[in-house]
Amino acid sequence: MNQEYPSTLLERAVKEFTKLPGIGRKTATRLVLHLLRKKEEEVEGFSNAIITLKKEAKYCKVCHSISDTDICPICSNPMRDQSIVCVVENIQDVMAVENTMQYRGVYHVLGGVISPMDGVSPSDLNIATLVERVSTGEIKEVILALSSTMEGDTTNFYIYRKLSQTGVKLSVIARGIAIGDELEYADEVTLGSSIVNRMPFTGKSVI
Amino acid sequence: MNQEYPSTLLERAVKEFTKLPGIGRKTATRLVLHLLRKKEEEVEGFSNAIITLKKEAKYCKVCHSISDTDICPICSNPMRDQSIVCVVENIQDVMAVENTMQYRGVYHVLGGVISPMDGVSPSDLNIATLVERVSTGEIKEVILALSSTMEGDTTNFYIYRKLSQTGVKLSVIARGIAIGDELEYADEVTLGSSIVNRMPFTGKSVI
Repeated sequence: MNQEYPSTLLERAVKEFTKLPGIGRKTATRLVLHLLRKKEEEVEGFSNAIITLKKEAKYCKVCHSISDTDICPICSNPMRDQSIVCVVENIQDVMAVENTMQYRGVYHVLGGVISPMDGVSPSDLNIATLVERVSTGEIKEVILALSSTMEGDTTNFYIYRKLSQTGVKLSVIARGIAIGDELEYADEVTLGSSIVNRMPFTGKSVI
Repeated sequence: MNQEYPSTLLERAVKEFTKLPGIGRKTATRLVLHLLRKKEEEVEGFSNAIITLKKEAKYCKVCHSISDTDICPICSNPMRDQSIVCVVENIQDVMAVENTMQYRGVYHVLGGVISPMDGVSPSDLNIATLVERVSTGEIKEVILALSSTMEGDTTNFYIYRKLSQTGVKLSVIARGIAIGDELEYADEVTLGSSIVNRMPFTGKSVI
């Protein structure tokens, strides 16, 4: 739609929605007109939930994940192994790993990855506090779980250099053929890497 | 994601987003966390644009489309043919017809279609004001441009009965094979209807 909107208020609301990732002008118009049909209390509920989150959200003082308390439920949980730290980019990644139900350690949220192109340098990320956590000597293993991209690799290497003197065990999540994928459709780099980094076969099915 | 959110504020905001059409839990989380990374002023801008629209939006007293003024720019435009009224379901449809640049008349926004299943009866729609507009005698033609669904057809027929005594010319937008579509992929009902309602060929290309 390249047409002018019949109302400037409508246009302003649509413009705000198009700033969100993956929302174009057409979808934004549909969402805004949907809200416009709702009762005023409902629209206020929507609007307030977002601004309240922004104003009142706290971040865990240990792992930097979002939390209602100073220390998040994962960091303060005595059932979690506090000696294993999984380093992730953002809060979504914490939720993604939690959903696997395969991890009983704790996290460290970097807040992004090193990306000179986007102006993100190591000092913009929560790397100093990670080094601090490790330097207490209470952490046995750091698992790097960043994206499999150039930026993720750069960040992995930067953290590796920062922590290599501490003697902490550093590991990286396995890369390979996704479960359920057929070999012929896998990209060459992943397939090559999955052969080089082959694992002992335990006779157990993974599917 | 069926996991609990690390923050109730986050969960509340995500829940509000999932109420929007076509937004699931995963997309909602992505949108909310995107907003959370923005500056407080920007989030306020987003939040305010929506609530301001809801609180201050006016509707044109003539055609019921959204407007910043009592009479919308289309209804008050002397260049538009005020004697032809195009009846549409909602504001999006006004914008869609406007985008075609093919229509120089005015509109009447019903606010939906008759749908007993969804509890929408004729009295919930702006039909009385349409009858009123026509009864002034200043309207020559009413074009029905509703969805090609059972509900749209029911609404067309209801309006037809309401207006048949007034002597106004009633027309309905053409239904047929969409421009650019191949016959073999068209559904049978549309194809059959396009043969029954064939038009004189003028020798002019429509593409």
